[in-house]
Amino acid sequence: MQKIRSGTLAALLLGSIFTPSLSLAAPADSDAIREAALKDDVAWNFTEGLTTEVGPRPAGTPQEARARDWAVAKLKALGFSNVRAEPYTMPVWLRGRDEARILSPFPQNLVLAALGNSGSTSDKGIEGEIVYFPSIDALEAAPAASLKGKIAFVDHGMGATQDGSSYGYYGAARRQGPSIASKKGAIAILIRSIGTDHHRVPHTGVQMWADGATPIPAAALSVPDAEQLVRIVKRGEPVKVHLTLTSRMLKDQPSGNVIAEIPGSDPAAGVVVAACHLDSWDQGTGAIDDATGCGIAAASALQVAKAGQPRRTIRVLMAGAEEVGGDGARAYFKAHGAERHALAMESDFGADRVWRVDFKLPQGHDDLAKRIAVALAPLGVGAGRQEAGGGADIAPLVKAGVPVIDLQQDGTRYFDLHHTPDDTLDKVDPEQLRQNVAAWAVTLNLVANASESMSAN
Amino acid sequence: MQKIRSGTLAALLLGSIFTPSLSLAAPADSDAIREAALKDDVAWNFTEGLTTEVGPRPAGTPQEARARDWAVAKLKALGFSNVRAEPYTMPVWLRGRDEARILSPFPQNLVLAALGNSGSTSDKGIEGEIVYFPSIDALEAAPAASLKGKIAFVDHGMGATQDGSSYGYYGAARRQGPSIASKKGAIAILIRSIGTDHHRVPHTGVQMWADGATPIPAAALSVPDAEQLVRIVKRGEPVKVHLTLTSRMLKDQPSGNVIAEIPGSDPAAGVVVAACHLDSWDQGTGAIDDATGCGIAAASALQVAKAGQPRRTIRVLMAGAEEVGGDGARAYFKAHGAERHALAMESDFGADRVWRVDFKLPQGHDDLAKRIAVALAPLGVGAGRQEAGGGADIAPLVKAGVPVIDLQQDGTRYFDLHHTPDDTLDKVDPEQLRQNVAAWAVTLNLVANASESMSAN
Repeated sequence: MQKIRSGTLAALLLGSIFTPSLSLAAPADSDAIREAALKDDVAWNFTEGLTTEVGPRPAGTPQEARARDWAVAKLKALGFSNVRAEPYTMPVWLRGRDEARILSPFPQNLVLAALGNSGSTSDKGIEGEIVYFPSIDALEAAPAASLKGKIAFVDHGMGATQDGSSYGYYGAARRQGPSIASKKGAIAILIRSIGTDHHRVPHTGVQMWADGATPIPAAALSVPDAEQLVRIVKRGEPVKVHLTLTSRMLKDQPSGNVIAEIPGSDPAAGVVVAACHLDSWDQGTGAIDDATGCGIAAASALQVAKAGQPRRTIRVLMAGAEEVGGDGARAYFKAHGAERHALAMESDFGADRVWRVDFKLPQGHDDLAKRIAVALAPLGVGAGRQEAGGGADIAPLVKAGVPVIDLQQDGTRYFDLHHTPDDTLDKVDPEQLRQNVAAWAVTLNLVANASESMSAN
Repeated sequence: MQKIRSGTLAALLLGSIFTPSLSLAAPADSDAIREAALKDDVAWNFTEGLTTEVGPRPAGTPQEARARDWAVAKLKALGFSNVRAEPYTMPVWLRGRDEARILSPFPQNLVLAALGNSGSTSDKGIEGEIVYFPSIDALEAAPAASLKGKIAFVDHGMGATQDGSSYGYYGAARRQGPSIASKKGAIAILIRSIGTDHHRVPHTGVQMWADGATPIPAAALSVPDAEQLVRIVKRGEPVKVHLTLTSRMLKDQPSGNVIAEIPGSDPAAGVVVAACHLDSWDQGTGAIDDATGCGIAAASALQVAKAGQPRRTIRVLMAGAEEVGGDGARAYFKAHGAERHALAMESDFGADRVWRVDFKLPQGHDDLAKRIAVALAPLGVGAGRQEAGGGADIAPLVKAGVPVIDLQQDGTRYFDLHHTPDDTLDKVDPEQLRQNVAAWAVTLNLVANASESMSAN
């Protein structure tokens, strides 16, 4: 367990544990809710069920539709109110064959996975010579048209961090690399997986073509394959690769969000959104990304309900299509953005223990933040100094000014598994999952029952 | 580092460190050789080169032929004498497509790898219902013909051990399971990988059809996939699976052994064989199985040579076709079995640190065993009480009565990687590899220079 971090807010909090104002509202409730939630089985059962009975569920596919049906039935069975799917349509990219072979100087296969929205080769594939770039910055610095007819290879190796913050910088190889390579004339791009493991499981993920960039085949090599290709490139001979990456695009496929509520006693007090995403990438069963997030959101809402009807409605949002661009989040905002939202929270970073809480609350709500931090402290969760930012499923709400709290999960091993075939149930630690449910439950309870307005005025 | 184990021989050895006889022969040499070998780069360079410049090298394929060419060139460059390939021919099983999909009740793909000598489906595959067996024993107990038209699934889960001893019992699911299932009428068999990891990397391996068993498609599911299938089976509904496992057999393909020598001063004293195998399975680059073994054998022989010409010739045997039945070992014995062999050793269990030495020496050679144990002790290697048994590459020699010493590697993580796509260079620890070279070098040096006869008379 982790001590509360030093820092301005944390110091304030530690000081204020002993002030009488804190004993007013929730501590007793928080203790009971936390202890009950530490015995929770709902989150595990939800995660086990979704990953086993549905498995992979890429956005806009029949598997995602099965996930919606499964979730609606499950949430009804768990006793939620107003359970429903809210459909929309979207374009869908579908993986085909992912094959690569070094032709020379040292013939051998490479393990890789096409990135979302990758261009497709023909069934016969393409051949080209590798041009090596140690980083995305080196690719960006390459002269215009210098990659004409070549296959760019970007070796941009990320290390593990607890807060996952490296993903922003290193992830650029996946997000921007393909467009940059295409604009410089490359016929394809290979990147080192944006991952921190050493297994032959490539990390896929979405990328969007920039304006003016022609789609080209784009794929991530597993980390051992990327390191192998680096060793071969560094021998100094030209490296020729054959690539077969077949994929296709479909228009207007059905996707949708699933919504379920714990109705509050005071409809005017605004809704507390507990978000996750129901879709997953296609290669794993989406256990840590994001079945656990949905399990945590649902289980913690139920833990609050068990303690009595909350003042505010808690709305669980299981978004569709998070992985491929946030269509579900936009559809939710279009349908519900005009409603009063008191708070939004999202769980989409696995289910290793929550170690830090970050806030973005309206002015005048410091006491609520203190109550929450005090209630989280026995779980080893310290208050951070960063402003909370939410995630993709609540991004439109956050952008519109809805308050947000982040319960930061330990991401040290998250990018070992993220977007790989290895994202499977066996990677979930049931004890840490329960700690997540407990952290969420005490937080949701305090916000849903807060006497504060949750608005700046 | 590990203390010498308690036990009869170990106790004797510890007692005898202080007897004058031990100070006669080798300690000074052993110290110098051990210290030099702990700085060895040859084993790493060999392993890095073979896995990078050749990569996967299944027996009887052009890749294995490239490995022989590579090894011959490398061993000549390292200064060995009498370097040559010794060819033979053999039948070859070649992997095709390995695909599996649960059709009902919960449609999803499974990751698996066909086992060596698996029967082939047509390109369209086959369908069948799963019959679950928790162990190989349960499969064996199933009534005759009870699997007619079904797909057997054997979930025989092995745990990690330092000495790898569980492989014998649990490996039976792979070695005998297919023949048993076939004889009971199964149309195919799936086994849980004989592996101790939790990654989507299935463990292949050879199996031979028993007399009277018709070849059927036979494959190993990755451990997470096997666990997923167990969860689905335990839901209680019939589980229907579609399998596509295409493979083919070729007759009379070229394979071969590679041999290299450090010539001894006394040809009549017999040859010391340092064996490993050059072939690998097809999915990884055969780093721990068995590029490191060949690196260790070559590097340690060179460390001995650096200290002066040994009495006995040290012959490095890099066998072909170990993975698929030991054709290389048999070819070596056919060509060289009549020569005088003073000792055989083999490295084929990765390159994590050597932790135990086992002996099978002729009567009257206890003092040599003591000298070796004393020389190994500073490396944390204790003398065991088991009789040494060698491995597949020297099995015909051992069977014919050639003395053998086993330097037992720590196998705790060996079966995380064994026969999977994950058997790649990044799994090799250079420091532990050097400890292996040092253990081998002091042992080879003492045996090659021993004044003893190395025979019982």
